[in-house]
Amino acid sequence: MLLRGRPRTLGAAALLLLLLIGFFLFGGDPDCELGGEREARRGGGGGGDPRSVPGSPTPRVPPDGRPRSQGAATFDGDPPADPRGHNRSDCIPPPPPPPKCELLQVAIVCAGHNSSRDVITLVKSLLFYRKNPLHLHLVTDAVARNILETLFHTWMVPAVQISFYNADELKPQVSWIPNKHYSGLYGLMKLVLPSALPPDLARVIVLDTDVTFASNIAELWALFAHFSDKQAIGLVENQSDWYLGNLWRNHRPWPALGRGFNTGVILLRLDRLRQAGWEHMWKLTATRELLTLPATSLADQDIFNAVIKEHPWLVQPLPCMWNVQLSDHTLAERCYSEASDLKVIHWNSPKKLRVKNKHVESFRNLYLTFLEYDGNLLRRELFGCPCPPPPGAEQLQQALAQLEEQDACFEFRQQQLTVHRVHITFLPHKPPPPQPHDVTLVAQLSMERLQMLEALCRHWPGPMSLALYLTDAEAQQFLRFVETSAVLSARQDVAYHVVYREGSLYPINQLRNVALAQALTPYVFLSDIDFLPAYSLYDYLRASIEQLELDGRRKAALVVPAFETLHYRFSFPSSKAELLTLLDAGSLYTFRYHEWPQGHAPTDYARWREAQAPYRVQWAADYEPYVVVPRDCPRYDPRFVGFGWNKVAHIIELDAQEYELLVLPEAFTIHLPHAPSLDITRFRSNPTYRDCVRALKDEFHQDLSRHYGAAALKYLTALQQPRGPA
Amino acid sequence: MLLRGRPRTLGAAALLLLLLIGFFLFGGDPDCELGGEREARRGGGGGGDPRSVPGSPTPRVPPDGRPRSQGAATFDGDPPADPRGHNRSDCIPPPPPPPKCELLQVAIVCAGHNSSRDVITLVKSLLFYRKNPLHLHLVTDAVARNILETLFHTWMVPAVQISFYNADELKPQVSWIPNKHYSGLYGLMKLVLPSALPPDLARVIVLDTDVTFASNIAELWALFAHFSDKQAIGLVENQSDWYLGNLWRNHRPWPALGRGFNTGVILLRLDRLRQAGWEHMWKLTATRELLTLPATSLADQDIFNAVIKEHPWLVQPLPCMWNVQLSDHTLAERCYSEASDLKVIHWNSPKKLRVKNKHVESFRNLYLTFLEYDGNLLRRELFGCPCPPPPGAEQLQQALAQLEEQDACFEFRQQQLTVHRVHITFLPHKPPPPQPHDVTLVAQLSMERLQMLEALCRHWPGPMSLALYLTDAEAQQFLRFVETSAVLSARQDVAYHVVYREGSLYPINQLRNVALAQALTPYVFLSDIDFLPAYSLYDYLRASIEQLELDGRRKAALVVPAFETLHYRFSFPSSKAELLTLLDAGSLYTFRYHEWPQGHAPTDYARWREAQAPYRVQWAADYEPYVVVPRDCPRYDPRFVGFGWNKVAHIIELDAQEYELLVLPEAFTIHLPHAPSLDITRFRSNPTYRDCVRALKDEFHQDLSRHYGAAALKYLTALQQPRGPA
Repeated sequence: MLLRGRPRTLGAAALLLLLLIGFFLFGGDPDCELGGEREARRGGGGGGDPRSVPGSPTPRVPPDGRPRSQGAATFDGDPPADPRGHNRSDCIPPPPPPPKCELLQVAIVCAGHNSSRDVITLVKSLLFYRKNPLHLHLVTDAVARNILETLFHTWMVPAVQISFYNADELKPQVSWIPNKHYSGLYGLMKLVLPSALPPDLARVIVLDTDVTFASNIAELWALFAHFSDKQAIGLVENQSDWYLGNLWRNHRPWPALGRGFNTGVILLRLDRLRQAGWEHMWKLTATRELLTLPATSLADQDIFNAVIKEHPWLVQPLPCMWNVQLSDHTLAERCYSEASDLKVIHWNSPKKLRVKNKHVESFRNLYLTFLEYDGNLLRRELFGCPCPPPPGAEQLQQALAQLEEQDACFEFRQQQLTVHRVHITFLPHKPPPPQPHDVTLVAQLSMERLQMLEALCRHWPGPMSLALYLTDAEAQQFLRFVETSAVLSARQDVAYHVVYREGSLYPINQLRNVALAQALTPYVFLSDIDFLPAYSLYDYLRASIEQLELDGRRKAALVVPAFETLHYRFSFPSSKAELLTLLDAGSLYTFRYHEWPQGHAPTDYARWREAQAPYRVQWAADYEPYVVVPRDCPRYDPRFVGFGWNKVAHIIELDAQEYELLVLPEAFTIHLPHAPSLDITRFRSNPTYRDCVRALKDEFHQDLSRHYGAAALKYLTALQQPRGPA
Repeated sequence: MLLRGRPRTLGAAALLLLLLIGFFLFGGDPDCELGGEREARRGGGGGGDPRSVPGSPTPRVPPDGRPRSQGAATFDGDPPADPRGHNRSDCIPPPPPPPKCELLQVAIVCAGHNSSRDVITLVKSLLFYRKNPLHLHLVTDAVARNILETLFHTWMVPAVQISFYNADELKPQVSWIPNKHYSGLYGLMKLVLPSALPPDLARVIVLDTDVTFASNIAELWALFAHFSDKQAIGLVENQSDWYLGNLWRNHRPWPALGRGFNTGVILLRLDRLRQAGWEHMWKLTATRELLTLPATSLADQDIFNAVIKEHPWLVQPLPCMWNVQLSDHTLAERCYSEASDLKVIHWNSPKKLRVKNKHVESFRNLYLTFLEYDGNLLRRELFGCPCPPPPGAEQLQQALAQLEEQDACFEFRQQQLTVHRVHITFLPHKPPPPQPHDVTLVAQLSMERLQMLEALCRHWPGPMSLALYLTDAEAQQFLRFVETSAVLSARQDVAYHVVYREGSLYPINQLRNVALAQALTPYVFLSDIDFLPAYSLYDYLRASIEQLELDGRRKAALVVPAFETLHYRFSFPSSKAELLTLLDAGSLYTFRYHEWPQGHAPTDYARWREAQAPYRVQWAADYEPYVVVPRDCPRYDPRFVGFGWNKVAHIIELDAQEYELLVLPEAFTIHLPHAPSLDITRFRSNPTYRDCVRALKDEFHQDLSRHYGAAALKYLTALQQPRGPA
């Protein structure tokens, strides 16, 4: 390839040619993007420590494609910048982008809840600008894998493949290295990628979770073309003085070439590293340095730099804008104020977005763009690339295509089929210790019920599994809400699962199923977010489950009687006796007493008043009590979206599967008032809406008959007796 | 310039050079972006109708930089595509981008409320990808100007200049042309840009309001470099068969070269058009064609095409991806399935986003990206470009820089200083006819009070001015909410002003001021969104204003007594008598009777019960009645953000300015229950929050004393008597 030849050996005609190219393409552009080719080529065949062989081939870092005019450090032993470097014609054009449909490979190490959130923002920025199919190689711990697997499965982005690698299995390879960096052991794991990734994978772009793309990753991929025959690692110069040493007394950084390199963005030729004996190489260097240095300060980066110092022929320096480092004492302004284009920003301060920097506001805006970006919009096809569709996408497309837009219930049908992107355990969460009678409260909510969470936490000291129906931007508001709440941030046993909004109807039963699927205790209390349980309910339920010997022996649903108050300010009864007093005083009612008494009538409140022991009740039409059931209970029917009949159908399922309905004599839960939801308002005002709910109901009954045969007859009979509004 | 020479006249060496460039830059890329240079150059010196001069120079359209392999139409008289065109080396590289800080000029014609919304989405996409300073030339009617002026003034995007041009003044130049296109008269206005824009403006990119950018506009600007010496209009070929004619019986389109060109995206060399006598040219052509054609079908586009047909040397064809046309029978797939990159999409069907197209979902996602994009995030600096900051931005920066992050009330200070982006009259709105006693209801709300709007419309048949505090995405939800509500979409006298969210505290008084400033009647009723006025209130207020002879002669604030219900379902009293019955029955209370009686005590409800005529009341501490005042009343104090004291301060201002407080005997308004807002929850639970409100109060009183001197003493005295919570 001509461009990889040595300019000094080129004939005059070829030199003219190159000058002309530069003139054509960059004559009007002072920011041509890639220099360094010349220097890198000089290092092509070299090696060894430049200090020991003066004048030897050494890479010089061309951070922005232009030599620094003054004051910028060059590497030890590097001759002063060639004055020809100032000439525009010296600019080397960016390499051509990879072919339209070429698969690009990306590797990311990710562990824990918080990094999983970060990596999603990174991936959103990546997907936004990409035009190529991608294969993401995710090295994860169990937590991140669980989160990201669910996420990508439900995200269904075309032309993205995902592979997972078990970080815990790789730990022994790096755990012997003492490391002081905040990223911990996972921060060292990039070192083992050449052996951890599939042996036939030759090239990969490795990214830290705290980088954000502002450009098409194909442009970065294209820089592999600049590698000389031996170069194997593409890196951007470190944009701080850390590796120069002497930042304070006894500051002794690991060895590095000049300012060293930052490993937030790496181009890796895995094939060459394997061939060069990378594993042996870095372990040798690390072991040797650790004889005199106590630990790594910057994790893998220290070791990469020490290896590169020893084998400078390995590295291909990359233009600075591919890793604009926003650390506390960053020198990045030199880069971004000259370049016309930022390509990747890197939040490499432990303070992340709270870092001080006079331009941080602009960078933050770019970051927030992707943090708050509706990830559903990234389900964009790559036109003209023959990529297999994501699993399930084709059936979904077909099902959606069969819907008729003229159907009055089209909106309902569409909503039922919608696959919502799901981010389980959005915030750090500790699974409850296994206990045979433990109960998780299960509920779902959207933004306007966030205020309920603190009160709920006070009323329910046990584990909770909550599905939140949010936009990406709202998920960030929710995060801040939890962070600023002392009550909420103190709880690690509440699992929040974000289900991303899509469509106009609230997918209530899909949300319930997400929360239910993520409950980790043997029992679940299926509640709604606008109810506050009795303070003692958590303990009482566990005791009742134990006493009733439910575990496996009895198929039962324990009914928690429901009440409601119409007043905002309301002193919550601390006992059943107090509750009964409030009921008699008219301050409390049984739930929906005025509007929908059949919903809870079978609970038999009169009997409950007097009851000392659990009592069995019979199913009746429209019954929808709040119940405690084993975790493996039937799922909610996802066809019910919006308002109407969503819980009723579930109780029918329980009854059809012969769950006993046992009312608990000391249990109660109270509904707090709120303005009617948009869905209930539509239900009340819109006859089509009500017709559609009725149609769903009919279809549900047909399925029930198919499933349970004659046993389901009683539900149909009950249905045919005209009743309340739904 | 070498690239502009004729390849056929180049020597062998230069040909080799071009081949090599092609090989280097596009060897790996089948999608090199710009062809057509060769052909366009051929047209450089020509002219006349190619049909009349066989073999004469004619532009051939290179929609995707590659000649069509089969079936695609070429222009009449054009020789078949040169087989060399299939060779990759024939690809001409895209021109270099303009210099980093070059100012790019853009012109858009925009009229009315709906187009103003469209143009904002276009501008958001433009700003998202741009790296250059921009000058937007907006040709607007009065409505669009009013909206866009306010918007850009409050948006404060760095490195964007705006100039407005009065479309109504330009109308006479095009109103003589009969036009059947849905864009109406404004659709023809692009024709007059050469004379309407400043005479020293040489180049401009002209955009339709229904295009969306998916790339940096500088790349489009760079295509000016491809113009030959005479070319003056850059256009993309029309991606439908419209101009080929014969789509149906008697379908007779205007004359065009082949498929013709689409004018949704135009590169205009204004200087050359002026020199070539453009105005004379197009008027002559239009007049002549209108002798045989009844009207334009596609507005300006018909005339542009007819002129180009006559003077083909004028046009420089642009690559197809700069105007991917998503009309009903689009042929655009030929373009986007081959190109690696979409640059601009054009919703040129009257159905807009509802157009049928098998890939429309992906295009829609791109459009929704910008529709819902938080415009605040576009306040990004262009690093290294010396652009003057937007008006007011510097003072704002300074004020923000002076805040101390350690200050416990930092959040309050920051919120007070925030300049919110404001989109006035977001939806179509008819100003009320001028009437001397008319009253506008003024209120503000956020998403969770949307359900109040229908009820409010039923209770208040008069004009309203409502400020809505929304994100960009919520603004779209709001739009759909109004569109699907029969009650709301029937009203044209309700003006909705969107104030975009920023910061964590609800900027209640800033919102009130926006709504108040946009009220167009002589009087305003300053209400809150959770109140429903008596059905008769609108008529009664107008009658009272007339009877009391308030107009200019009396400085009065008419008090509308406030009540509240604690029940959701509630039958609204149709008269004062009914209200009193409910009050006596305990179904209604005077507003905040239990929690904050001093807020309304001075209204003197006991007297009101019996009153037959308006009566005067005196100010007392913490009084915050709902009042009717002249439109020029004092503004609300914007320092009060979040919950607490925001209305109280306004009533003090009224009293300090000696407004009489007159209670109206038949007026009433009733507060409906809702869950406590996030701000009130924080106020109640957070002592720092309360301290900050107290600090704001103290500062307010200091300012009051400075302003009104001794007269303000009474407010301070009242303050020092310990009272309720705020």
